[in-house]
Amino acid sequence: MFSIKPFNTDKSAAIQQVIDSKTKPLGALGQLESLAKQLMLIQSQNCELATKTLIISQPTMLVFAADHGMAEHGISIAPSEVTRQMVLNFLHGGAAINCFCRSNNIAMKVIDAGINTPLTSAEKSISEHFIEQRLGAGINDTSTTRAMTSSQVQQGLLYGKKITTDIINQGCNILLLGEMGIGNTSAASAILSAYSQQDCEQCVGKGTGINSQQFSIKKHLVAQAVSRLDPEKIFTDPYYLLKELAGFEMVQMVGAILAAAEQGIAVLIDGFIVTSAALMAEKINPNVRDYLIFAHQSNEHAHQLMLTMLEAKPLLNLDLRLGEGTGAALALPLLKAAASFYNEMASFESAGVTV
Amino acid sequence: MFSIKPFNTDKSAAIQQVIDSKTKPLGALGQLESLAKQLMLIQSQNCELATKTLIISQPTMLVFAADHGMAEHGISIAPSEVTRQMVLNFLHGGAAINCFCRSNNIAMKVIDAGINTPLTSAEKSISEHFIEQRLGAGINDTSTTRAMTSSQVQQGLLYGKKITTDIINQGCNILLLGEMGIGNTSAASAILSAYSQQDCEQCVGKGTGINSQQFSIKKHLVAQAVSRLDPEKIFTDPYYLLKELAGFEMVQMVGAILAAAEQGIAVLIDGFIVTSAALMAEKINPNVRDYLIFAHQSNEHAHQLMLTMLEAKPLLNLDLRLGEGTGAALALPLLKAAASFYNEMASFESAGVTV
Repeated sequence: MFSIKPFNTDKSAAIQQVIDSKTKPLGALGQLESLAKQLMLIQSQNCELATKTLIISQPTMLVFAADHGMAEHGISIAPSEVTRQMVLNFLHGGAAINCFCRSNNIAMKVIDAGINTPLTSAEKSISEHFIEQRLGAGINDTSTTRAMTSSQVQQGLLYGKKITTDIINQGCNILLLGEMGIGNTSAASAILSAYSQQDCEQCVGKGTGINSQQFSIKKHLVAQAVSRLDPEKIFTDPYYLLKELAGFEMVQMVGAILAAAEQGIAVLIDGFIVTSAALMAEKINPNVRDYLIFAHQSNEHAHQLMLTMLEAKPLLNLDLRLGEGTGAALALPLLKAAASFYNEMASFESAGVTV
Repeated sequence: MFSIKPFNTDKSAAIQQVIDSKTKPLGALGQLESLAKQLMLIQSQNCELATKTLIISQPTMLVFAADHGMAEHGISIAPSEVTRQMVLNFLHGGAAINCFCRSNNIAMKVIDAGINTPLTSAEKSISEHFIEQRLGAGINDTSTTRAMTSSQVQQGLLYGKKITTDIINQGCNILLLGEMGIGNTSAASAILSAYSQQDCEQCVGKGTGINSQQFSIKKHLVAQAVSRLDPEKIFTDPYYLLKELAGFEMVQMVGAILAAAEQGIAVLIDGFIVTSAALMAEKINPNVRDYLIFAHQSNEHAHQLMLTMLEAKPLLNLDLRLGEGTGAALALPLLKAAASFYNEMASFESAGVTV
């Protein structure tokens, strides 16, 4: 379903040489240097390096929203209705992610991947950036049954691929991902617990700020969801956890991530939820990892374990715990800065600097 | 010489209430929330809060350059000539700081605060953004004698104040600081050692990447410089270390920092060298601290000690070790993002979000 080219690292040394010729001590731009190198490896797959500049073209944020059956147990600070209310807030431009996308010149689209109650026609018309590709009215309560059917998984991956292909065709070469879904940290925790084989103490956090009683229930429900699984299938069928544990927003993000890598563009991964989608995408096709840039270390402590599994060191650590794609949006200027130093900075030779 | 108003914290609760009314869980925007609050406390000193929006106006980077006598001992990866060469690189627009200022829409000026050999008329005419306010041809070798005279200190503070006042009069309300000076991590280390009463092992690092032999010599020279000092004067005369240990670029930055706070604008502090200037400014007038935003945790390990002394938690940690103001320039988009969420984000009430 997704054919992703492994990185051609033949150009690696040549790219490093461009970076090392710049008027700065070797390695002095730290993570921005590895960022520039990764972006250049992505963008130079099909062309001559010598004439190539890094391009950040129409960066686009896709915010996928869906509901979670497990939220009925009251394990979030807000009820499921808030997923829908926040979708409307996104369409009106009033959420944090809207502010950060405007502030950093990022286009933004909002996708109903399966919230409990669809928007009315009047509500949909609030913004031309709303896209409806529903897989259902929220996933099942995964503490007792699978999240969705196999055909919903396949449809979700195709939906994610379709919208990503559309924005790439419109000129986007940086995909940013965000999400909204009351209860979705529980789903991400369950996925982490299953893949890492760590128990819930390591994998479940307080999300956006629940109390200790809610926290106990949340751990219990996540443990129940994981205990339902067939241990063998976790590592032999990469689509198994999507069907059993993932939210509709997550399945579509997995499709979007794989499609972006297939088409050779970089993906900026947000916090805990989006990273869980990246983890699932990596199980489906490990080649995808090369195309992923990790934006933000979430305040959710289990995010660190997930990042370690993906050998990822995020660009930012600002104690955010909001989701929506806020960390990814905030990191975009660093990609622009990496491109600007790679493209425009003088070499020792051109600047006449001794060393 | 500098009269800085202490923060009027009367508005603190009201500002926090604006932040807490936004459509997000309490505290979910982490460091961006404290950043927005600090900026609002700075900008609302003289006006009614109710009608006030955060404004980021003409952010301006001042890069101060000067030479250091101690560099004669070969304790840097490059000779002192490189200070001047990099000033020319700044004027031609080819350095990392030029790229990041362009990338983030930051105006930039380059100040010769005392490099060894002044620019020729032809060189000065390369860029209208060059400013000459020299205090001499580099400071003395502080391992054997004081850096400069008291009148040079006073003149340097005035120079820093003058250029800051000029850019504020032109509409700037965010001052960013950067520097260039071969040998200036040694000066910053000596200042840190004197103020922290920690020995050189804790205060001296490898700068932009010296070898172990250079590192030994550097530690020895810094220790010698500190051993020359009169221990009593360190904590009783806040101008004493400026005269004994500071570079011409540092003294002018101290003046710039104090002047910015005096005139009520925020200052974005870069890495190890600029933070040493912030430390000296804070000794002269502790009220200055409220106006300082720390951009970047340097890869120079002693920077952490300096930050702890100033109770500062920087916004970025990207393993940079370049100086020039690069960390400050990279952090500016986070200030814009903080302003955008504070000004534009919907409240629970306006968005119709339950919780």
